[in-house]
Amino acid sequence: MAGSTLGNIFKITTWGESHGSGIGVVVDGCPAGLALNETDIQAFLDRRKPGASRFATQRKESDSVEILSGIFEGMTTGTPISMLVRNTSQKSSDYSDIASYYRPGHADYTFDQKYGFRDYRGGGRSSGRETIGRVAAGAIASKLLAELGITVTAYTQAIGGIEIPDTECSLEMMDINEARNNPTGMPDKETSLRAEAYLKQCMESLDSAGGIVACRVTNMPTGIGEPVFEKLDANLAKAIMSIGAVKAFEIGDGVKVSSANGSSNNDSFRMDDNKITKATNHAGGILGGISDGSEIILRAHFKPTPSIFQKQDTVNKNGENITVQIKGRHDPIIVPRAVVVVESMTAITILDLLLQNMTSKVEQIKKFYDK
Amino acid sequence: MAGSTLGNIFKITTWGESHGSGIGVVVDGCPAGLALNETDIQAFLDRRKPGASRFATQRKESDSVEILSGIFEGMTTGTPISMLVRNTSQKSSDYSDIASYYRPGHADYTFDQKYGFRDYRGGGRSSGRETIGRVAAGAIASKLLAELGITVTAYTQAIGGIEIPDTECSLEMMDINEARNNPTGMPDKETSLRAEAYLKQCMESLDSAGGIVACRVTNMPTGIGEPVFEKLDANLAKAIMSIGAVKAFEIGDGVKVSSANGSSNNDSFRMDDNKITKATNHAGGILGGISDGSEIILRAHFKPTPSIFQKQDTVNKNGENITVQIKGRHDPIIVPRAVVVVESMTAITILDLLLQNMTSKVEQIKKFYDK
Amino acid sequence: MAGSTLGNIFKITTWGESHGSGIGVVVDGCPAGLALNETDIQAFLDRRKPGASRFATQRKESDSVEILSGIFEGMTTGTPISMLVRNTSQKSSDYSDIASYYRPGHADYTFDQKYGFRDYRGGGRSSGRETIGRVAAGAIASKLLAELGITVTAYTQAIGGIEIPDTECSLEMMDINEARNNPTGMPDKETSLRAEAYLKQCMESLDSAGGIVACRVTNMPTGIGEPVFEKLDANLAKAIMSIGAVKAFEIGDGVKVSSANGSSNNDSFRMDDNKITKATNHAGGILGGISDGSEIILRAHFKPTPSIFQKQDTVNKNGENITVQIKGRHDPIIVPRAVVVVESMTAITILDLLLQNMTSKVEQIKKFYDK
Amino acid sequence: MAGSTLGNIFKITTWGESHGSGIGVVVDGCPAGLALNETDIQAFLDRRKPGASRFATQRKESDSVEILSGIFEGMTTGTPISMLVRNTSQKSSDYSDIASYYRPGHADYTFDQKYGFRDYRGGGRSSGRETIGRVAAGAIASKLLAELGITVTAYTQAIGGIEIPDTECSLEMMDINEARNNPTGMPDKETSLRAEAYLKQCMESLDSAGGIVACRVTNMPTGIGEPVFEKLDANLAKAIMSIGAVKAFEIGDGVKVSSANGSSNNDSFRMDDNKITKATNHAGGILGGISDGSEIILRAHFKPTPSIFQKQDTVNKNGENITVQIKGRHDPIIVPRAVVVVESMTAITILDLLLQNMTSKVEQIKKFYDK
Repeated sequence: MAGSTLGNIFKITTWGESHGSGIGVVVDGCPAGLALNETDIQAFLDRRKPGASRFATQRKESDSVEILSGIFEGMTTGTPISMLVRNTSQKSSDYSDIASYYRPGHADYTFDQKYGFRDYRGGGRSSGRETIGRVAAGAIASKLLAELGITVTAYTQAIGGIEIPDTECSLEMMDINEARNNPTGMPDKETSLRAEAYLKQCMESLDSAGGIVACRVTNMPTGIGEPVFEKLDANLAKAIMSIGAVKAFEIGDGVKVSSANGSSNNDSFRMDDNKITKATNHAGGILGGISDGSEIILRAHFKPTPSIFQKQDTVNKNGENITVQIKGRHDPIIVPRAVVVVESMTAITILDLLLQNMTSKVEQIKKFYDK
Repeated sequence: MAGSTLGNIFKITTWGESHGSGIGVVVDGCPAGLALNETDIQAFLDRRKPGASRFATQRKESDSVEILSGIFEGMTTGTPISMLVRNTSQKSSDYSDIASYYRPGHADYTFDQKYGFRDYRGGGRSSGRETIGRVAAGAIASKLLAELGITVTAYTQAIGGIEIPDTECSLEMMDINEARNNPTGMPDKETSLRAEAYLKQCMESLDSAGGIVACRVTNMPTGIGEPVFEKLDANLAKAIMSIGAVKAFEIGDGVKVSSANGSSNNDSFRMDDNKITKATNHAGGILGGISDGSEIILRAHFKPTPSIFQKQDTVNKNGENITVQIKGRHDPIIVPRAVVVVESMTAITILDLLLQNMTSKVEQIKKFYDK
Repeated sequence: MAGSTLGNIFKITTWGESHGSGIGVVVDGCPAGLALNETDIQAFLDRRKPGASRFATQRKESDSVEILSGIFEGMTTGTPISMLVRNTSQKSSDYSDIASYYRPGHADYTFDQKYGFRDYRGGGRSSGRETIGRVAAGAIASKLLAELGITVTAYTQAIGGIEIPDTECSLEMMDINEARNNPTGMPDKETSLRAEAYLKQCMESLDSAGGIVACRVTNMPTGIGEPVFEKLDANLAKAIMSIGAVKAFEIGDGVKVSSANGSSNNDSFRMDDNKITKATNHAGGILGGISDGSEIILRAHFKPTPSIFQKQDTVNKNGENITVQIKGRHDPIIVPRAVVVVESMTAITILDLLLQNMTSKVEQIKKFYDK
Repeated sequence: MAGSTLGNIFKITTWGESHGSGIGVVVDGCPAGLALNETDIQAFLDRRKPGASRFATQRKESDSVEILSGIFEGMTTGTPISMLVRNTSQKSSDYSDIASYYRPGHADYTFDQKYGFRDYRGGGRSSGRETIGRVAAGAIASKLLAELGITVTAYTQAIGGIEIPDTECSLEMMDINEARNNPTGMPDKETSLRAEAYLKQCMESLDSAGGIVACRVTNMPTGIGEPVFEKLDANLAKAIMSIGAVKAFEIGDGVKVSSANGSSNNDSFRMDDNKITKATNHAGGILGGISDGSEIILRAHFKPTPSIFQKQDTVNKNGENITVQIKGRHDPIIVPRAVVVVESMTAITILDLLLQNMTSKVEQIKKFYDK
């Protein structure tokens, strides 16, 4: 069954394998009249590009995007925007041996079980390169949200247990410039240096590390999210958990709420400058699945890269127990490159629900059609 | 926009408010030929019924279900199954005062912002009673999965930080009978007693508690889940996060993976009795968004009930800061009654994706149509 | 697979069989703030009620609707509106013999082939009573469209070849009051009398008749319809063809266009009172799948009722050729009762696409969110 | 809102404008294990290519397709198949003047109304070139159907009123080879010659013609179609009416049924060689929205090409009445090139519903999962 399309109004369809001709996305339902060009997209893609740091695979890909449709005279036309990134640095030979066995922690076995066989080159469709389509679409969603004054900001909050406390992660306190320029994506220089030391150690022991990517959305309108199944948090959870390697998702205080009390977890409403606000934000900006106007805060937990260079036990396609040692180019951690993916999936989800919310009231429909 | 429909093939549409005429669900796409009657549904509904324990609201509702369509001579016919539970114990007067202000931690404010006004009686659509439709549908999904040998089992793993360790939560080790009969839903008598003491304390201090519901799916076929957006874990996340009060979702090792190493987090494949299995199951039964045949393990973190009897700060509809003290019937914890909701949402999601998987291979389609 | 849900934003899910407990619909995505009560719905249902004329089955059903959710203090709340009509006049014994064979022109055989068996009482889900859900939803859509100044008007244009010419079917020329009160649904008294005579003749010869239902939508905004698959005409075609017994669908000049020339078929644009209009309307109000602001005109061709009282050849479930003579209560024509069904499906489709159109331009989204 | 995606299981997303970089489609949900290469697709595309006959635009496009993903070692992998056709023969200057006014019968005005502006070059997204994506997807659907023994065959039945009678259109009687090689697409040489003479006359008078494309599906399994909204005929209607220029759709006897009687319109069931068949096929192979195993027969009525070279009245963007004379390259009739488009849309729809039908019975699901 088709699984590569996401969204109702702002709808994206991604395609492509690691070692096929290319990777791409069709963004349909993008409203007309958004100034957009390839530079907007490329800026996002460059943030997930391989080879940018010593903790990322040395595969050299320019990952240049071509917009094939949907733009006329520099503006979106309301028709589908098709974007294409050619694969240029495939070394299929690197992967030829993995055709015969199932790498632990990878999707090799499950793809074979589902489809009968798989494009094993570089992981095929389950490669991290699949996220190129998500990021290209995310660039558009982010730009449109920016027009509405809404900003979406993701960053690395933790690597291998080395974590920036929540209390130091407000947008005011963090150094997002630092995050965009260091190899960890952490918005705190000192913590980043500790994480880098840890990662170096992982590499030396032929091991890999996981981490946490957090994301904050500011200036959110109230009312976004469609109960009871298309709630804002439910859709964010789906969008984020659909990213490879994410094993847990939190909104607001997340896992902490299960050991909290109502008296401390409830956020009081308060009037502030004639506007309803909340004294605290344990809820992460969502009540009853609908945005409450305060900051949206979410966290995604990424598992360590499954491709490690240690010897590992596994089975081959003949059903024999074997020991393997994976070769090739693999990041010891994917978290820094995943930051822009989390940001993109968040922006796509927020935008789609923001558009869906426009039909909530009869009064607004009458105003729209000027009755 | 419509948000009360979930699923592609096995599709549910829920409706109803806490103090309207009733609550219900239409289950469409249920395959024909499943033996089904109201007793099957009632057994599930009774597990979430109020008044069953001293930690649940004393509202007395029989919550009797009527099946209105889709069954003929005791079997599903393939046509939509409509189910109705009448509300019988509404005391709308209890809630009349909350019409004027926004309860902290509730959806009052966000519903007003989205729709312009709200049915404030008992929380309206954002009431926990909304889950009746989910559970009635879950009873059907569970029964059909059982026909395929698949079992879905949810239980309370933690209340207010009092937690049964993962290592003691295997289906073999836990006492599910205990869980189904004690007031906490915990499959361990000693831990349950400690949790009960804690809850008693919460009630005495007019406070509330949160907790963790875990769910395990055994005998899963491989190949279930549709990359890249309709992955099994992504859809489970959405389904579970769409339940009111859930603030975090975990698959397998969940939040622990972000501080783990690849060498310990990877699950080795092993041959066992001529079948491919995994030596461990950190992944929680899902690789690349597709089931790998091992147990599916997920955890949902519920926040403490927002309705507490302490005085709380909030604002009213006139935009004034006020202090309120909530009255009425409110559970000090919703976790025990949410167990069957988590189980239902899991079953619904698994079944829908299991049906979606049937068209993955040309070979199987040819076999189906006998070519 | 689920097939009983229609629409993206204004989404309806119908359920129910002819001889089950009842028939109903859940309308989800209806905007909040529409004044609505059961009288609004009942007025529509009464137009399709049996027993109203001598050409309709004498089954006596009050078809009283109960609104179960989604309304508070007389207004829609934005949450799902569930509506229920109990079946009260089932005489299942009438149908017991048809369990064993396949009625020509009916869905008996195809339901058996698809689902393995069927609820044969009164046709089960394939009964005309299924349209009750459509009409109840149509009443809501029509009322909301009326708030926007849009009117949807269906009528019988032809019965058994006795046809009111297109040129006499403008809303100005037709007598819609006549159509609503005579037994044919035709907006012309003289033609209606001729059709009545024809129908009487059909009944005498134990035969049945077909006809044409036309529908006109006035005061349409421009811009409604989403290329390239969710075009306005494509969705109208689907909605209308999903009504049992419809075998052809036309927009504007319909089948005539295939023998026309471009020079006569093109509608010239003209300025009229400072507004762009068209000199003619061969297109039926739709260009490129998008409304052009002129009247929407469509026609649905209904086949003759398949249940006739003549002897017919068929086969039974044992695979034997047999001759049967159908008993029971059957309309000699369904067209008059189908008028309100066509009107309802048209209104539902128009409304859904009208809501979808609200996100077409960035400029309007910025205005909506006041940026 | 997104409108360029069609289908539930076999899902296609098309994109592209007449004078942009290219046109394409993503086919998602195609089952794994279908042998497929660019030659399969090209064969279909060549059937709609411009310049093939004297009745088609002389624009010279090779319309060469590139498959970018979803194929590995000559087989579909179950992942999205992205296909790209570059535009190579754009002459944007030809169209520069139409930027300022609205061509009668075209979508210029409605696109402007909907989106605020339009890519006017060659009609942009509303160009006939948009069908390239449909046809590329149709080639895949047709190939998969062929594996199941199902054949889909479209042909021109009428041009400008010159029509091959239904009785001479059975697959046995028609000369499909003739249809594939003459300039009209008609499966009868003599009628085709008459139509050619008529078209020549149209061209001489600077006019255009419409016509009828019919399509027949043989060897259909029973049980295909999902009541009550996703019926086979309803989905065929939508798919065919979504093709530009189609103004009417018929199944089986189509518009004739409205003047027929039940006694003549009903198809008797008969045993034939131990199999249930029908003595006649007025229904066109569909009863109650579900295939009955006999031939599917549909007809699409195409309007005359709106671009004619006569002087026409219209308005310009300044709201002035003007007279225009369209230049450029335009077919006097689009019907012959639309044959493969109708065939493609039919195949896509049939396949999607055929896959949807696989989950109709519990018994078959148990068999699939071997329980």
